[in-house]
Amino acid sequence: MSTANFGDTREVTAPADFHVHLRDGELSKLVTPHVREGGFYLAYVMPNLVPPITTTEMANEYKKRLKEYSSQVEFLMTLYLSDALDPNDVKNWKAAGIVGVKSYPRGVTTNSDEGIESYDKYDELFKEMEKHGIVLNLHGEIPSDHSKNICVLNAEERFLPVLSNLSIKYPKLRIVLEHATTAAAVQAVIACGDNVACTITAHHLSLTVDDWAGQSFHFCKPVAKFPEDRRALREAIKSGNRKFFLGSDSAPHPTHSKSTATHMSGCAAGVYTSPVLLPLVAHLLDSFGAIDRLADFTSHFGRDFYQIPAGPGAPKVVLQKVHGVKVQAEYSDGEKTVVPFWAGKDLEWQIVDVTQ
Amino acid sequence: MSTANFGDTREVTAPADFHVHLRDGELSKLVTPHVREGGFYLAYVMPNLVPPITTTEMANEYKKRLKEYSSQVEFLMTLYLSDALDPNDVKNWKAAGIVGVKSYPRGVTTNSDEGIESYDKYDELFKEMEKHGIVLNLHGEIPSDHSKNICVLNAEERFLPVLSNLSIKYPKLRIVLEHATTAAAVQAVIACGDNVACTITAHHLSLTVDDWAGQSFHFCKPVAKFPEDRRALREAIKSGNRKFFLGSDSAPHPTHSKSTATHMSGCAAGVYTSPVLLPLVAHLLDSFGAIDRLADFTSHFGRDFYQIPAGPGAPKVVLQKVHGVKVQAEYSDGEKTVVPFWAGKDLEWQIVDVTQ
Repeated sequence: MSTANFGDTREVTAPADFHVHLRDGELSKLVTPHVREGGFYLAYVMPNLVPPITTTEMANEYKKRLKEYSSQVEFLMTLYLSDALDPNDVKNWKAAGIVGVKSYPRGVTTNSDEGIESYDKYDELFKEMEKHGIVLNLHGEIPSDHSKNICVLNAEERFLPVLSNLSIKYPKLRIVLEHATTAAAVQAVIACGDNVACTITAHHLSLTVDDWAGQSFHFCKPVAKFPEDRRALREAIKSGNRKFFLGSDSAPHPTHSKSTATHMSGCAAGVYTSPVLLPLVAHLLDSFGAIDRLADFTSHFGRDFYQIPAGPGAPKVVLQKVHGVKVQAEYSDGEKTVVPFWAGKDLEWQIVDVTQ
Repeated sequence: MSTANFGDTREVTAPADFHVHLRDGELSKLVTPHVREGGFYLAYVMPNLVPPITTTEMANEYKKRLKEYSSQVEFLMTLYLSDALDPNDVKNWKAAGIVGVKSYPRGVTTNSDEGIESYDKYDELFKEMEKHGIVLNLHGEIPSDHSKNICVLNAEERFLPVLSNLSIKYPKLRIVLEHATTAAAVQAVIACGDNVACTITAHHLSLTVDDWAGQSFHFCKPVAKFPEDRRALREAIKSGNRKFFLGSDSAPHPTHSKSTATHMSGCAAGVYTSPVLLPLVAHLLDSFGAIDRLADFTSHFGRDFYQIPAGPGAPKVVLQKVHGVKVQAEYSDGEKTVVPFWAGKDLEWQIVDVTQ
């Protein structure tokens, strides 16, 4: 592992972002093309719309809209875990284009595991998912509960026993711990069987708690943690462990939702990386001596885990190390404006070519 | 210890805030009268103006200005720790109205203790302060250093060995650890000799990290930490330990400095409590069963440590528990606007009388 020289190039075949929020309506129209602009040909799409995506019909209608906004990207669709999902339907999901089911943290007062909604009631569903090759995507955080000393800083670590238990109970269910932020999470994922993988975002390779303290544009959930946690995420990538791959959790919010112009309410959680994602990841990996893992982290490892090979004739994206390209301050459709991560700052990598 | 009933009253003799920022210029004119409005008759004034207060002359000129803005308040003046302070002058300070010296964290690369500027060079100064009864006020945080895993979350805890060493090296120097935010700090202060005391702010009795995550108006330094840390602060007060008393660290910033309306910069650190301080402290103490400690925490213990008794004929402030008084959204002089903590929310205690 080493740092690249200026002028060096790296090539990634069909870059794949295994966790992205593409929203709906006008905002979706603005942000969906940014997946391709950021260098990606595969987007694993989160189902947390209003209302959430809970049927194959909803997923396919959503996918159709996304295709209209960006025809070159392969959109992999997910359903939102809830009682609305029928175990008897799971056998039809794959053919209908569903790849995974996303679980969001939901606190409950009774019948709960570790302070979250119990997964016991999904036993039949998970067994069917295991049988039919549907992936379980976990937002691994316990909701805050001050009586148990749970807050945003330890919400992920407190969830890890749940991950471990699920991976043992359903040994063939492929499970992804999404957007890991802690050394503890990295260790827990490594300790689990091969059915467990883990996405890492670009921004968590850059931020620590110091960066979102007093700067709401860097606030997301899970929050960025200690410098040693960031180091563990970087080391997981550097080590070449196949369990760790990119899921950007790129989450656009209109600028006014991200600012805290008054004391009345906090801001929306989310960092928006899609428009600059591949150059940003290259820049960050290069900064900690892991540029040679670029293709593994942004394509191979994720595609292997999801069993979605790039295939012959897949596009190859070429990046080059340059002396700084400024990230634009914002993206706008005239009505809505979103601010990308790294806005106004220089990236040392840029996309210079795409070959088929 | 118990919770008060509606209609109950409590009386505090000459409430004293042992840590407050009163700024300079127009902002000072706006905020200084809020000390009295918030129920206080003594303000221990921080010296971090631009330029900082480093001479008795500067301190007295500043005090004169403050007196013009609020004649009923006793202002206790401090100097800013730096090389500018001459040990030979210390013997004259008390007579000139100087009560303490405030140390702010300053990182240095060489000649440093635990990542901060070494206190060794102040040995002669501290010995003179010890001899002449000048208090040392410590902002106890180590500047962030990611190579050592130091960030805003552990900056205070990493400082505590420095506190302990100073208290042993200068056993008669009165030292105050300012605005403690962690269980570790509470334990360290208790473990030190009687020459060490500790201020606690109102807002750290209310906030945890969850409250400033994505809400810059709740961002201050030291940042609020875990729920268990908040509990330790509350217990320190509840226990009646005389080492712990109020220093609000009330720190007004114009509203535009507190908001994060763009991605370009973070916001100023500070929470503004002065205008509602005594009712706010009563409300918070009552919320965790410590209302009977109100007078100890907001007057007696601090005055005892500083050896500044209220004296005969001192005003007595009477508070009553009521069914909710809304805190106003902001304070303005027409030009500048500041937003108080608890803005728009109800407090259950209010000042109903002042007797002489």
